[in-house]
Amino acid sequence: MASRSRTVLGLRRARISSIPCARTIRALPQVRWQSTATTEDSEGVAKGTTGTSKTIKFTSESYPDIKRDSKFAEITEDHVKFFKELLGTESAVIDGVTKDATDDIEPFNGDWMRKFRGHTKLVLKPGSTKEVSKVLKYCNDNMLAVVPQGGNSGLVGGSVPVFDEIVINMSRMNTIRSFDEVSGSLVADAGCILEVTDNFLKEKNHIFPLDLGAKGSCHIGGNVATNAGGLRLLRYGSLHGNVLGIEAVLPDGTIVDDLGQLRKNNTGYDLKQLFIGAEGTIGIITGISILCPRRSNATNVAIFGLESYEKVQTAFREAKGQLSEILSAFELMDGNSQELVNKVTGNKHPLEDKHPFYCLVETSGSNAEHDNEKLEKFLEFVMEKEIVLDGVLAQDETQVRSLWGWREGITECLGHWGAVYKYDLSIPIAELYTLVEETRVKMNEAGLIGDTDEHPVVEVVGYGHMGDANLHLNIATRSFDKKVEKVLEPFVYEWIAKRNGSISAEHGLGLAKKKYIGYSKSETMITLMKQIKNLYDPNGIMNPYKYM
Amino acid sequence: MASRSRTVLGLRRARISSIPCARTIRALPQVRWQSTATTEDSEGVAKGTTGTSKTIKFTSESYPDIKRDSKFAEITEDHVKFFKELLGTESAVIDGVTKDATDDIEPFNGDWMRKFRGHTKLVLKPGSTKEVSKVLKYCNDNMLAVVPQGGNSGLVGGSVPVFDEIVINMSRMNTIRSFDEVSGSLVADAGCILEVTDNFLKEKNHIFPLDLGAKGSCHIGGNVATNAGGLRLLRYGSLHGNVLGIEAVLPDGTIVDDLGQLRKNNTGYDLKQLFIGAEGTIGIITGISILCPRRSNATNVAIFGLESYEKVQTAFREAKGQLSEILSAFELMDGNSQELVNKVTGNKHPLEDKHPFYCLVETSGSNAEHDNEKLEKFLEFVMEKEIVLDGVLAQDETQVRSLWGWREGITECLGHWGAVYKYDLSIPIAELYTLVEETRVKMNEAGLIGDTDEHPVVEVVGYGHMGDANLHLNIATRSFDKKVEKVLEPFVYEWIAKRNGSISAEHGLGLAKKKYIGYSKSETMITLMKQIKNLYDPNGIMNPYKYM
Repeated sequence: MASRSRTVLGLRRARISSIPCARTIRALPQVRWQSTATTEDSEGVAKGTTGTSKTIKFTSESYPDIKRDSKFAEITEDHVKFFKELLGTESAVIDGVTKDATDDIEPFNGDWMRKFRGHTKLVLKPGSTKEVSKVLKYCNDNMLAVVPQGGNSGLVGGSVPVFDEIVINMSRMNTIRSFDEVSGSLVADAGCILEVTDNFLKEKNHIFPLDLGAKGSCHIGGNVATNAGGLRLLRYGSLHGNVLGIEAVLPDGTIVDDLGQLRKNNTGYDLKQLFIGAEGTIGIITGISILCPRRSNATNVAIFGLESYEKVQTAFREAKGQLSEILSAFELMDGNSQELVNKVTGNKHPLEDKHPFYCLVETSGSNAEHDNEKLEKFLEFVMEKEIVLDGVLAQDETQVRSLWGWREGITECLGHWGAVYKYDLSIPIAELYTLVEETRVKMNEAGLIGDTDEHPVVEVVGYGHMGDANLHLNIATRSFDKKVEKVLEPFVYEWIAKRNGSISAEHGLGLAKKKYIGYSKSETMITLMKQIKNLYDPNGIMNPYKYM
Repeated sequence: MASRSRTVLGLRRARISSIPCARTIRALPQVRWQSTATTEDSEGVAKGTTGTSKTIKFTSESYPDIKRDSKFAEITEDHVKFFKELLGTESAVIDGVTKDATDDIEPFNGDWMRKFRGHTKLVLKPGSTKEVSKVLKYCNDNMLAVVPQGGNSGLVGGSVPVFDEIVINMSRMNTIRSFDEVSGSLVADAGCILEVTDNFLKEKNHIFPLDLGAKGSCHIGGNVATNAGGLRLLRYGSLHGNVLGIEAVLPDGTIVDDLGQLRKNNTGYDLKQLFIGAEGTIGIITGISILCPRRSNATNVAIFGLESYEKVQTAFREAKGQLSEILSAFELMDGNSQELVNKVTGNKHPLEDKHPFYCLVETSGSNAEHDNEKLEKFLEFVMEKEIVLDGVLAQDETQVRSLWGWREGITECLGHWGAVYKYDLSIPIAELYTLVEETRVKMNEAGLIGDTDEHPVVEVVGYGHMGDANLHLNIATRSFDKKVEKVLEPFVYEWIAKRNGSISAEHGLGLAKKKYIGYSKSETMITLMKQIKNLYDPNGIMNPYKYM
């Protein structure tokens, strides 16, 4: 790619010189880049804002309105005995009931953001679908509430207990069952780690059709259960299209054996779809089959500076048209987000001048030369038409990662000042950025933004997956503050509701957004959803206190 | 495209000469081609096998085991009065109850294949979602059974009544509600005709992400209700991934208002998925929103001859790898299918020698030159490696249509001798063609195949969407014959069940396949599906006697 890129850029320089406005698409110089990759999902909130594990506030204290449902049984020694006999191995039951195992249990009680903390005393790690079935049936018969848990990398508190729900952790079910190189269909246990699965596919010249910051720890079963979106959705589409089959266990122990590997199968209701995005509230996914595309040979990444959100939209429209089948990402970062990354990391931004908006464009295709040529034409067009003001193109894999750092590093940098209010929203593209502007105006009017400590808000920033109309509205603050919350809510949710947007684009409802679903779904839809919940989980033991 | 193609072909000729085996990828000469495009779905069975409309056997006679369910009310003059008052316009109610309107009603009672015929005396054409709601509520309250009907182009008898079910025809709801050129999301009434919708999108430089032979008459609501597959699935994926939202009416009149236009929306169970492929058994789809991709600038089509099914699989794997993001169709036609098309049309096949297998490969992309180059490299590779024996490449739009004719014309040509047994199957690719071979052996062993009239079977052929592992196994016969049926069933279904295939890949269950679902779904799955049916349609008024 490198040699070809130089040609492109040489050509560009030559042509650009004849354009009055001194705009350039430059080769990216080697910059020092301190990795800001998070260990977990790159959209996650600030880490370390609540101290060490021991001091995380219990969810039951942060959400005093939520009371333990007395219909659920308390765990007894007899229950523990049953599970130990069933699951056998030492590692399969972490028992804080009959013996003190608090330290071992804590990682399963809390989330990586340190925002949620439960009181569970029992963690079960079934090793097979049959074991999951027996565990759930027993829990259902004995009115024991459970929380399915994958890699526990979620952002909305969906995979940790609130009270003493039993954690059913899927990490022992981590076998890749089969892969068909002709059709590209993969069958694997739910507990396979995304990155491990993708590395397996890499050897077969295929990719998992989903990528996200938490790939090193999240489970593919959790990805499906939360209908994760991530970085490849623009290119490969949603899990509702890519998942070919699901094996799941219902609370009564029924094994839903819908693990087909066929692209086409019109034999009855597509029930597996209900489990995609159900967040473990109607059953536990134990296996998936999924269609995996061929891995692309060539990847190009560029970052542009633009003068307005109108130009961003034009650039996106042109990218869709001109880059078409090779466009694999179109990410938006506003000027504020890039300044904060610069402040925290000390890295020099690849574009010299400051711009109100930046876009990261990625192409991936089967022919590097063709892709470069398409990208070159596109760059020429957006420069000549003054759609973008400046741009750089990565020259090698290191620079590709460096450019992505200016997008993926935002999340962690925002946490630098203390705490972050985070919204993961879908909004019709035309109005997507308006919300950020209006939120900033409101914070200013309330006198809450400033450089000094008496101002709670450091900055209001907007970034996200422009290609999917998915905005991450983030408010970086020095600490969580009721005054800030009062400005934000219900303002943000009402703004979204008015535009038929979504209050949760890709992160799910979990505990955090449970009470706001009414802003995105009508009463009728919520009633219909509750019917489904009652149909599959009449005792309500599956992931209680969450979702809706 | 033409001039570029000639270059490609010139290059090919030059190189090919050095290869011992005299294989060529030739420019396609202008051939006379009598259009064999069917007016309906190109996978449909033979037409005209059962005489004129008046003589089509009633479904109630062909399927004597199915009895009218006495729980349903008979239609009275009062019912008709209610509907006339509700729907108003003269064209909205076709009434064979209070007056003799049999001739007007017949088109709604029968299917285009002339295989199914019902006894309805009332056709309703609501003009709005609210009207659909009022109609369904009234029917549900009065235990009147209904059949939702779109373009009535189905192949399994799903959209025509069996007894006196009221036909709810959606043709008056045919408005395109909105289109967003930035996101590509289209919102339209269910009764919009697919081709009309696609033509609308063509003007906006977009396409509907689905294409099939019946596009001139089928409704987009019907496409979604039957989860139609068709020709673009390999490239654009299934409707489960592309449909963004659905508006539907439940039997009790509830309007399911899930017509979002967002690519990402993780707020609760994705209920709209249940309606995709439900074949009108739980509600009526009144509107859809769907993600439409940009239209490709360039299209190339080639046909190859291959010596074995192993080579077909190798060619497919190479096409996926080398053509990658521009591969838009990979269709399989066996030698028998091509000989029959030749016999019926008298057209000369584009490949001079006869081959046991043929493939049609289509690419579509944003840059004609790049696509030609990729295709050229691919052609060179498959010729040099002796994966294909011969091939032609279309030079212009006429030739593109001509080559497609050898694939799309199969269906109608098979009907030439009288009657066709048709199976629409999903099978793991490695074994896909084995079924055709085994079926042919069985027919031969039973002495049923021959050139003369005492043999019922003309030929056993296999063709279909190789890219989706979707085989159309067709047995062209001189007339429907019990001896043939005895060889075919349950053999075909058992063969499919053993390989975890699907007995209905893209055509649905309808009436024709209702009783065979057990070959593709377990008892558990069928029980779970029946739960869904009972949840949404407890009275069972929606499209009774069908689906499962």
